Amino acid sequence: MRILYHIPLCPFSRKVRVVLKEKNLEFELRQERVWDRRPEYLQMNPAAEVPVLVESDGSPIVDSGVICEYLEEVYRDRLLLGIDPIDRAEVRRLIAWFDLKMNREVTQNLVGEKMLKRQMGYGTPSSAAIRAGHANIHYHLDYIAFLVERRRWLAGDHFSLADIAAAAHLSVLDYVGDVPWGSHELAKDWYARIKSRPSFRPLLADHIPGNPPPEHYTDLDF
Amino acid sequence: MRILYHIPLCPFSRKVRVVLKEKNLEFELRQERVWDRRPEYLQMNPAAEVPVLVESDGSPIVDSGVICEYLEEVYRDRLLLGIDPIDRAEVRRLIAWFDLKMNREVTQNLVGEKMLKRQMGYGTPSSAAIRAGHANIHYHLDYIAFLVERRRWLAGDHFSLADIAAAAHLSVLDYVGDVPWGSHELAKDWYARIKSRPSFRPLLADHIPGNPPPEHYTDLDF
Repeated sequence: MRILYHIPLCPFSRKVRVVLKEKNLEFELRQERVWDRRPEYLQMNPAAEVPVLVESDGSPIVDSGVICEYLEEVYRDRLLLGIDPIDRAEVRRLIAWFDLKMNREVTQNLVGEKMLKRQMGYGTPSSAAIRAGHANIHYHLDYIAFLVERRRWLAGDHFSLADIAAAAHLSVLDYVGDVPWGSHELAKDWYARIKSRPSFRPLLADHIPGNPPPEHYTDLDF
Repeated sequence: MRILYHIPLCPFSRKVRVVLKEKNLEFELRQERVWDRRPEYLQMNPAAEVPVLVESDGSPIVDSGVICEYLEEVYRDRLLLGIDPIDRAEVRRLIAWFDLKMNREVTQNLVGEKMLKRQMGYGTPSSAAIRAGHANIHYHLDYIAFLVERRRWLAGDHFSLADIAAAAHLSVLDYVGDVPWGSHELAKDWYARIKSRPSFRPLLADHIPGNPPPEHYTDLDF
């Protein structure tokens, strides 16, 4: 059985969870406390990060971007990157936008500071970082609105890995109650479409002991 | 004619320059002072980063990882990611290692602080960051040694994008004289093999006015 090592509030792990579901691939989910630096885990991934996917034959695939490319190459019934190279480049550009730029400017500053830092015992949250995260999130919600005003989904006519990457970040930010949906109607409509997909439901069932999500987190009509 | 917008000491731009040469693709190189936020450039890449490749038909491809995947899909005479999906995952894992982890732990702390920050007018270098960069580089050179003790090239039997990504980072670190080659013989031997490739030569001819490289930078027998 395929195993995905993950952390519930890690947006990169969530991206892979949704991709596996969209491609109808069965997997077992295992939490990995990467900060414990378990030797067997470091042997699979010396970078000590999640996610790692262990395929049914035992091959470990490391890094969420690498896992998604691998799954797209091997399981081709349901494509999430598209077919034409220029279209694929646009999907990948947006994945990089959310996984690098939005992650650095928003997700790390909010979820990273408030939840992961504490969980890992890496000290107290920085209030300057949290302020920056709150300021930056508007820009990224506006960018989502800019895209869905012009296209059906973020990268074009089809639901793609770009939507999944963006939604994965927003889902963890929403879990900590940090998405100002009220002032971002278009981004909210787009997220509502994703929230109602069966592949996304398991993320909405995540529950961190001692840190419950806000009530609207699981609500499809939020 | 294909155009590559770049910054000479940007490791991501350098990675693409080597890939284009390895694939024997002609291109014109243009420096882009991204910090000027030129409107025509922002329209191609709202993230205001280099590199951007503009294909002969005018299509802009944004982000070094996206460009490399695109070139590998379209120009298949010379493959740099391999063929088997598990082998490709290993090449991509190492690209992520160098472009994310090494970049964050070493390149940004040294080249970013010393050169790019000043160039962009983003304030004075942080001595704490520079100390961290000097401390962290040994770990990454040791990892390269670990790999080439077991394999001919970083990801396996064949020269790949993993070698190009790692060498691109080391080449900018070497330009600012920050690679402690003396205590890393195996990494040095591997880098010497890359330095002698024709695709790598143009990087060795780069010269930043007012900031010449150390003498050994261009020397193939350093």
